[in-house]
Amino acid sequence: MYCFNSDYTEGCHPDILAKLAATNMDQTTGYGLDPYCDEARELIKKAFACPDADVHFLVGGTQTNLTVICAALRPHQAVLATVPSHINTHEAGAIEHVGHRVLPLPSADGKLTAAQVAAAWQKYDTDPSREHWAQPKMVYISQPTEIGSMYSKQELTELYAACRAAGLYLFIDGARLGYALGAPTNDLTMADIAANCDVFSIGGTKCGLLFGEAVVICNDELKPDFRTIAKQNGAILAKGRLLGVQFGEAFRNGLYTSICQKATLQALKIKQALAGRGFAFVTDSPTNQQFVILSPQQYEKLSHDFVLSLIEYLPDGNYSVRICTSWATLDEEVDKLIEAIKTL
Amino acid sequence: MYCFNSDYTEGCHPDILAKLAATNMDQTTGYGLDPYCDEARELIKKAFACPDADVHFLVGGTQTNLTVICAALRPHQAVLATVPSHINTHEAGAIEHVGHRVLPLPSADGKLTAAQVAAAWQKYDTDPSREHWAQPKMVYISQPTEIGSMYSKQELTELYAACRAAGLYLFIDGARLGYALGAPTNDLTMADIAANCDVFSIGGTKCGLLFGEAVVICNDELKPDFRTIAKQNGAILAKGRLLGVQFGEAFRNGLYTSICQKATLQALKIKQALAGRGFAFVTDSPTNQQFVILSPQQYEKLSHDFVLSLIEYLPDGNYSVRICTSWATLDEEVDKLIEAIKTL
Amino acid sequence: MYCFNSDYTEGCHPDILAKLAATNMDQTTGYGLDPYCDEARELIKKAFACPDADVHFLVGGTQTNLTVICAALRPHQAVLATVPSHINTHEAGAIEHVGHRVLPLPSADGKLTAAQVAAAWQKYDTDPSREHWAQPKMVYISQPTEIGSMYSKQELTELYAACRAAGLYLFIDGARLGYALGAPTNDLTMADIAANCDVFSIGGTKCGLLFGEAVVICNDELKPDFRTIAKQNGAILAKGRLLGVQFGEAFRNGLYTSICQKATLQALKIKQALAGRGFAFVTDSPTNQQFVILSPQQYEKLSHDFVLSLIEYLPDGNYSVRICTSWATLDEEVDKLIEAIKTL
Amino acid sequence: MYCFNSDYTEGCHPDILAKLAATNMDQTTGYGLDPYCDEARELIKKAFACPDADVHFLVGGTQTNLTVICAALRPHQAVLATVPSHINTHEAGAIEHVGHRVLPLPSADGKLTAAQVAAAWQKYDTDPSREHWAQPKMVYISQPTEIGSMYSKQELTELYAACRAAGLYLFIDGARLGYALGAPTNDLTMADIAANCDVFSIGGTKCGLLFGEAVVICNDELKPDFRTIAKQNGAILAKGRLLGVQFGEAFRNGLYTSICQKATLQALKIKQALAGRGFAFVTDSPTNQQFVILSPQQYEKLSHDFVLSLIEYLPDGNYSVRICTSWATLDEEVDKLIEAIKTL
Repeated sequence: MYCFNSDYTEGCHPDILAKLAATNMDQTTGYGLDPYCDEARELIKKAFACPDADVHFLVGGTQTNLTVICAALRPHQAVLATVPSHINTHEAGAIEHVGHRVLPLPSADGKLTAAQVAAAWQKYDTDPSREHWAQPKMVYISQPTEIGSMYSKQELTELYAACRAAGLYLFIDGARLGYALGAPTNDLTMADIAANCDVFSIGGTKCGLLFGEAVVICNDELKPDFRTIAKQNGAILAKGRLLGVQFGEAFRNGLYTSICQKATLQALKIKQALAGRGFAFVTDSPTNQQFVILSPQQYEKLSHDFVLSLIEYLPDGNYSVRICTSWATLDEEVDKLIEAIKTL
Repeated sequence: MYCFNSDYTEGCHPDILAKLAATNMDQTTGYGLDPYCDEARELIKKAFACPDADVHFLVGGTQTNLTVICAALRPHQAVLATVPSHINTHEAGAIEHVGHRVLPLPSADGKLTAAQVAAAWQKYDTDPSREHWAQPKMVYISQPTEIGSMYSKQELTELYAACRAAGLYLFIDGARLGYALGAPTNDLTMADIAANCDVFSIGGTKCGLLFGEAVVICNDELKPDFRTIAKQNGAILAKGRLLGVQFGEAFRNGLYTSICQKATLQALKIKQALAGRGFAFVTDSPTNQQFVILSPQQYEKLSHDFVLSLIEYLPDGNYSVRICTSWATLDEEVDKLIEAIKTL
Repeated sequence: MYCFNSDYTEGCHPDILAKLAATNMDQTTGYGLDPYCDEARELIKKAFACPDADVHFLVGGTQTNLTVICAALRPHQAVLATVPSHINTHEAGAIEHVGHRVLPLPSADGKLTAAQVAAAWQKYDTDPSREHWAQPKMVYISQPTEIGSMYSKQELTELYAACRAAGLYLFIDGARLGYALGAPTNDLTMADIAANCDVFSIGGTKCGLLFGEAVVICNDELKPDFRTIAKQNGAILAKGRLLGVQFGEAFRNGLYTSICQKATLQALKIKQALAGRGFAFVTDSPTNQQFVILSPQQYEKLSHDFVLSLIEYLPDGNYSVRICTSWATLDEEVDKLIEAIKTL
Repeated sequence: MYCFNSDYTEGCHPDILAKLAATNMDQTTGYGLDPYCDEARELIKKAFACPDADVHFLVGGTQTNLTVICAALRPHQAVLATVPSHINTHEAGAIEHVGHRVLPLPSADGKLTAAQVAAAWQKYDTDPSREHWAQPKMVYISQPTEIGSMYSKQELTELYAACRAAGLYLFIDGARLGYALGAPTNDLTMADIAANCDVFSIGGTKCGLLFGEAVVICNDELKPDFRTIAKQNGAILAKGRLLGVQFGEAFRNGLYTSICQKATLQALKIKQALAGRGFAFVTDSPTNQQFVILSPQQYEKLSHDFVLSLIEYLPDGNYSVRICTSWATLDEEVDKLIEAIKTL
């Protein structure tokens, strides 16, 4: 059995493990105030061309989302996000737990458009009873999205302009950012990302690290006391240097993008095989997650040799199934999966 | 200018005011522990045939909703409600502020069906990643609904059966309960209401009192420490006897239902006049709120002499307009409005 | 039996009741956007000489405290207050419920000193692990205090200077403000109060109204979206004009201060009688609440004819007992109580 | 420079690192539902003789405390803890952030006594205004305490009896549990701990793991939906097996206790050296943390070669200084420190 069900089934990339081992007995200060974190912060600011940003290292994705939102918003303020967005689905009510409303907007392709954001703000802003509504103050998107789709430079630029026009912060959840950066059709550089939002995260957990998410705060308004609010949310790792060591290794020589790019290309090979057999997809994904529609029989058959992720029972009796590659996916297993697809 | 825009434009019914005046200089204990509250609690338990219920008096509607939900749920638990429900719209994020997710379900007529609740629970209960979702634990409905519609006895009975089957609490927001009780087509007695939910509120603010909502807790699980949680939410009135005095007067001799019934009948006269002129309605309302669709010109014209409530700009350019009667509405003003409708 | 146990045993001053009755059938907009509230806001701003302040009307004291603190602070920020302060004792954890820590400071006389505040800030500011502590950002005091004592102009001026030096907001809870204003030894004008804090409240509930607290926001930083945050906390009264009518009547012709002054003078007569008999007090109170130390026997004896408030069982076996006058206290009952004291 | 300032300056014990490396490319399910976690849960339940307990693996200490408290309490319920307890000091208001009040009790030796708990409950339970107070429902202690002291079997047994008598949950924070278990004077077995509380944690971060805390829930009332509440607090690690691998290694062959015992013995050697030179201690600590009182000059001098932790500036001008050993402390460095102490 080989797992294509998610991109966090293994530990971490061997280079990162080696670095953790090599530095294991070093003695450092805790809580991210060590030289490894300092170096990693600098590498990230350089890679994303945002020298004035604040960079913080947290442990997990839900934690990152709730901490960023908690730190950014006043009590009555809310977050616009897609219906299938992570904060609106798989976070067990984490955003509401820290007091904020998620205002879901429909999205067939997993993305929000500038027009949607402008319309949502307009609806709020012109409502006669506006004072009685939770106030939209932030837009949350994921790059790539939860269903594998990806914003283009034009889309992101327009979206951020719409946010700024409405006085909304834009927060990009980059839990799988590496896989978007590695997509052949991606036209958003790292610098473009930092330049077109107020705060974003760089996912480590799904992109080759044992764990860890970097939060990059570009907008000065969102910087004060972020560390204390992270601490208050249980999001400051005592041995913070573990995050610095990992992110440093990931960004020192381009490891982050190279290992993710390989995975995206593997996924696109699988996608091609599926498309070649006429399978439909939930959305057109250029990244490492492919959401394909299979009949129960087809799902069963593939599941003999591969672990896939059954996401949803569709109304027509079919299944939405996630096939996911990662930095750790083996080429020979991709080949085997493609062979199996051909026999469906 | 006469106001038909809401049912809380005046103070309170003269009998209630008289009782407040007559008892004004009495000295009593605070916080609802006085003889007036004791009597009102007994009157309500008798009227609703729920001798074992706990009855509490709070001040306002949003306060009542957030306190009941806050007291009933554990942190990860959520509330199913309609998209247009009060807690999903006009409470400024109050439910999220006390930590809970509102899970909105679509509803054309403002009501939830047993089938919807069963399906929502089923979807949660069978989700492979169920542990990562906020857990539905309560169903919130309003009787009458926010758009004037009303549950029948069969609908409510089925809905409560669906809730019990799924282990969900049913909470009925009765902010305008009197107006439903007074509807000619209503077949739900007060006893039926208490017998078909876990907790409900009886609105005073919109039904003849200066202010005040009674919370009636039928399910023993929801009773412990409600008063302290209300206090914690700033929802315990120091001079609690003001609520007891008012609710006592409302329920001692049937004042509550009689004054609301009159208003509902007035609204139905207006509805008939509108229907007679061929106007369409957002939903078919048998209660004191009529949501009619008017052109901007028609709305303007009526607004010369009457204050109406512009609820929403509809996509087709028309307006959804609320026309609302109350315990205080004068028959002669109803007649004048009907005359004006005939000239549209 | 006559009640001296609290200052909220009756309804409201007859003039206020008369005004509520006279305006009862007026039709107005809800939520405090009516002409009565407008007038009351202007009267208050004039009385306190703070033309640029924002004035809001809420219903109760705990509600006021939690709403002001909730609106003012970011998640990690905390409030300095005395150990016996209302927010640290009788609010059932309301401040923590909206997410904030109360940092209690010891106080024998119920007051905080400038030196205490400066020291508390200094301790935080110089702590090597400062980032791991809740951050003091507001100082909460009551005028008069919960045990009847009162800040002088010098004390308040110095305290506010200490707050400003440390970047802390000063919030004055004026739940019983009228009784301090009416104290013979008071040297703080209304204008002094507004000029020496960032936000304060004016209590109505205990000072002659049926209910109601005015929040006066002097510091621009604390103004944005206060109404929405109040709504979110269930603190916006639907028929908001009830608050405007009452506060208008209280401040149009000096009713607020005159009725409270009378009560304070009554309390001082009782105090004198107690002192004349050699009784000790918890603190030296120049206002309407006297906390006297009685033996159980003395308490029992007085309780035959008067309702007093047993506050605390003291370690030495005696009781701390509150004797409280109000705007409604009758001179003949004060005389009777003094007679009874003389027989102890 | 060698660090004695904390017990989390290094990575993890080599055996644990080796196991992480050996299992790095295994593919497993996420979120703690993998065989490594299963095994670790069994090992812990066996070691602590609590076969019916639920065991969960979280990442950090503050996270553990806030999640356990958040899952256990209703909104109005509060936690009794010592003034110097971790939740009352260095967690940035985390407990208040999840809505609960910490009720601090004074403690010279860092411990709570059964008598204190009984008195605190009695005070609440007999308060005439009990309904207006946050309700004590949990007692939080640390073993060993934040200042190095340690409960005896008798103390813990009595404390738990006091908790049960008052209906309070007892939560033992075992962030440094290994160091107490390894103390020569310890008389509490692992089984004793599990048998004398409702929930406890086993610290990994400070006891030889890279990171990780195990939560052991003994009381059935506290078990339901803990995983979802942890998820909601951002406390579920995606690659949960990292925690299972580490805890499994720590508990398979007694590594946890053996490496911590060595550290405690090292600390006691240092303590003896300090005591031999006449130094005073903040409290008498039989565990790996020694809080000694040094003059600024003495602190400076030691700081030339050793990193110590300056905890507090004492009123008399001296410093409270923490000297801390860990599983990673080298004997030769202990010897050097003792030499240096002898020259003070």
